[in-house]
Amino acid sequence: MPFDTPSSTSERPHVVIVGAGFAGLEAAKTLRDAPVRVTLVDRNNYHKFQPLLYEVAMAGLEPDDIAHNIRNIFRGNETVNFRLGTVVDIDPVLQRVHLHGNESLAYDHLVLAAGAVSTDFGIPGVEEHAYPLKNVPDAVNLRNRVLRQFERYDRHRAATGEGALTFVVVGGGPTGVEMAGAFVELFDTLNNDFSEFDTREQARCLLLEMEDELLPPYKSPQRAYTRQVLEARGVNVQTNTAVERVASDEVHLADGRTIPTQTLVWAAGVKASPVANLLDAEQDRGDRIIVNPDLTVPEHPEVYAVGDMAAIEGTDGYEPQLAQVAIQSGEHAAEQIQRRLREGTSEEFEYWDLGQMATIGRNAAVAEFAGGIAVRGFLAWFLWVVIHIAKLVGFRNRLSALVNWAYNYFTYNRSARLILDMVPISDDVPMEVEDVDQQVKERLKTVETQPH
Amino acid sequence: MPFDTPSSTSERPHVVIVGAGFAGLEAAKTLRDAPVRVTLVDRNNYHKFQPLLYEVAMAGLEPDDIAHNIRNIFRGNETVNFRLGTVVDIDPVLQRVHLHGNESLAYDHLVLAAGAVSTDFGIPGVEEHAYPLKNVPDAVNLRNRVLRQFERYDRHRAATGEGALTFVVVGGGPTGVEMAGAFVELFDTLNNDFSEFDTREQARCLLLEMEDELLPPYKSPQRAYTRQVLEARGVNVQTNTAVERVASDEVHLADGRTIPTQTLVWAAGVKASPVANLLDAEQDRGDRIIVNPDLTVPEHPEVYAVGDMAAIEGTDGYEPQLAQVAIQSGEHAAEQIQRRLREGTSEEFEYWDLGQMATIGRNAAVAEFAGGIAVRGFLAWFLWVVIHIAKLVGFRNRLSALVNWAYNYFTYNRSARLILDMVPISDDVPMEVEDVDQQVKERLKTVETQPH
Repeated sequence: MPFDTPSSTSERPHVVIVGAGFAGLEAAKTLRDAPVRVTLVDRNNYHKFQPLLYEVAMAGLEPDDIAHNIRNIFRGNETVNFRLGTVVDIDPVLQRVHLHGNESLAYDHLVLAAGAVSTDFGIPGVEEHAYPLKNVPDAVNLRNRVLRQFERYDRHRAATGEGALTFVVVGGGPTGVEMAGAFVELFDTLNNDFSEFDTREQARCLLLEMEDELLPPYKSPQRAYTRQVLEARGVNVQTNTAVERVASDEVHLADGRTIPTQTLVWAAGVKASPVANLLDAEQDRGDRIIVNPDLTVPEHPEVYAVGDMAAIEGTDGYEPQLAQVAIQSGEHAAEQIQRRLREGTSEEFEYWDLGQMATIGRNAAVAEFAGGIAVRGFLAWFLWVVIHIAKLVGFRNRLSALVNWAYNYFTYNRSARLILDMVPISDDVPMEVEDVDQQVKERLKTVETQPH
Repeated sequence: MPFDTPSSTSERPHVVIVGAGFAGLEAAKTLRDAPVRVTLVDRNNYHKFQPLLYEVAMAGLEPDDIAHNIRNIFRGNETVNFRLGTVVDIDPVLQRVHLHGNESLAYDHLVLAAGAVSTDFGIPGVEEHAYPLKNVPDAVNLRNRVLRQFERYDRHRAATGEGALTFVVVGGGPTGVEMAGAFVELFDTLNNDFSEFDTREQARCLLLEMEDELLPPYKSPQRAYTRQVLEARGVNVQTNTAVERVASDEVHLADGRTIPTQTLVWAAGVKASPVANLLDAEQDRGDRIIVNPDLTVPEHPEVYAVGDMAAIEGTDGYEPQLAQVAIQSGEHAAEQIQRRLREGTSEEFEYWDLGQMATIGRNAAVAEFAGGIAVRGFLAWFLWVVIHIAKLVGFRNRLSALVNWAYNYFTYNRSARLILDMVPISDDVPMEVEDVDQQVKERLKTVETQPH
């Protein structure tokens, strides 16, 4: 028998929010003073600032800079409660969310904001060999991998094989562009670390994009500028290049070519969290729930889907999976819940496009704002830094990120160059340095196949 | 056939230093301008500031605050090279250090500075169930465990079992005292996180010490003050209390009592790193190599043992395993190497006792300085903070630690309350929240038993 959550003394309607990313967090914040009680459920006890994951992977920021304890955000607030847990099922008839571990939460209103996960489009080898970048452990794992490849190469070049220092990024969207730009900066920094070889000559970064241009949602001048800067800085950009198969030491392309690489970063695509599959709702190709104009799920007026797991009809197809869409849709769902309680009516969601920005690296970024204003270069980069620091949750994270970035900027350093495997390693046993990240992958698989 | 390290063009004598803790790092720094070439070997690519590990475990500091990239310390220096690796054997006749992975380093002088590891004194259950605190992953793992226990208790109290919020620290030395003091501060902080129960009432911390007083190396007034402060803050201090057996949900004491606890921190004792066993040298009870007065290993005049893995005869038995002894002995070994190269002579090591200090928590510490000056309370605490920040390696770490501590001090917060399992977790599979740290332990065992 599932446990029931201890019922609150309050008779207020109960809103359950699944996911504490941009959308879920914004929904909970919007409801913090509303006449409801809110349970915010997430599998982690922190909110992560996803746009900066690549900076953690590239040793520019520390993991703790982009993660903020969720309970801390709602300290002293009586309305919003946090619950660490994983949603395994939803019963829309009985209006219950089932969590792993025989627990369930009854809801009056449900906001689904579980975000997106990496998808391999069925390409063989991606799951086994590619490095995704969707959560903090992914970023730390990639950071460890990249730094360890250089240590390996320094140790005995002959034994490391071809492609030891070839880093392939698949996907020319903002994440791929930001990763590739940061990779070549990291090569520069590492050149001061290794005296026996020139990291800038030995290491290389390839950015592969299936379509014919980088940053497809941007206008042509920004796309051209991005490619030009990346290439000038040493990134090998290959558009119209599709991946056919990934192996442990090479990637096979659709055009028949093979590129030796031991580290392939998968930034090619996402699909909605599996939570989107738990309702019997219509979904788009990316598993997103196709929602009504007011963001409710068809036939379930008390269930909202928001952020990356919602397919929201916009003026030009479904709205893109961006932080701004997530934040605004999360806020909208929270407002509709209040409006329905007050007046029984609901309003359509309208996305207010503030624009978009992507950084290419030091002093270089592209930005497009509402009204057709485009900015490239230093100014765009400066705006990018200011906005991203301002958007981080919490004073401590903002200050810490500022300190790290300022330090890195002025010293041309990347200060978080730590190989920090967060799996305890016994001091008694000499650790297999050579194979440690393969072992982490193996252990990961053990975890994944655990019965629940 | 083992690989040989690519020989340097330099014909300078080659000094190999094993371990980049306080002793090894100081030895390498002392030699940075000497007419030698140095290879500093460590299994991690960072130096860790061990005295503050407990602050990471107690969510007061971030892991990256106390870890500093070793290559960064020697950037631009031609003399000192870093090598990521694990020592598996030493051949004192051929003067070679063998690293894991079929690599070996020839040395003219060898400095053994591999430090100490946790020891369970053969007490059953410690290895399986207790949480050690010797390296950064240990600290992160303990932080995850403690925070997760509170999440579990919040989720469904009835299912968590007795002892879910009982935290037992074994060992009344500085680490144990610091841990216990930080535990009760963490309970205070967490009370703002959980609205459904009072963490200060439900959670408790016991500090067990086998001897009849805490902080044995300190003088009586400091020991009494320490106990008084800890007890006033809510720590249950039990001296003359020996542990007989540790189980997953309780600890059995030598006096027949049983204390229910699911989290036992082992701060009871250390022994020298297993590297100390690789030479055929005489060792003390704690596996330390008993060294000559000039810190060389008997019968191996070109091998020095320093820091926690050396038993150095002092005025009052062997010198204690303290950071100051490590730093001074590491420096001495480096100076002897230079002196021997210059004059062929060597000098005895003399430990210059600057004193010792331990913090008990907010505004409370004890310190004893050379000359018999003792300080307790706020002033000792303030000195402790200043000295520890000053001793951290690198501007970024100092600033970051200062920011975290200042923030925590003024907000009564502990800002790093993140459950950050650094093992990648697939988004596709609902994670077993309840059992995740047991799984981490299981995975750890898999790693440990890997063949090399």
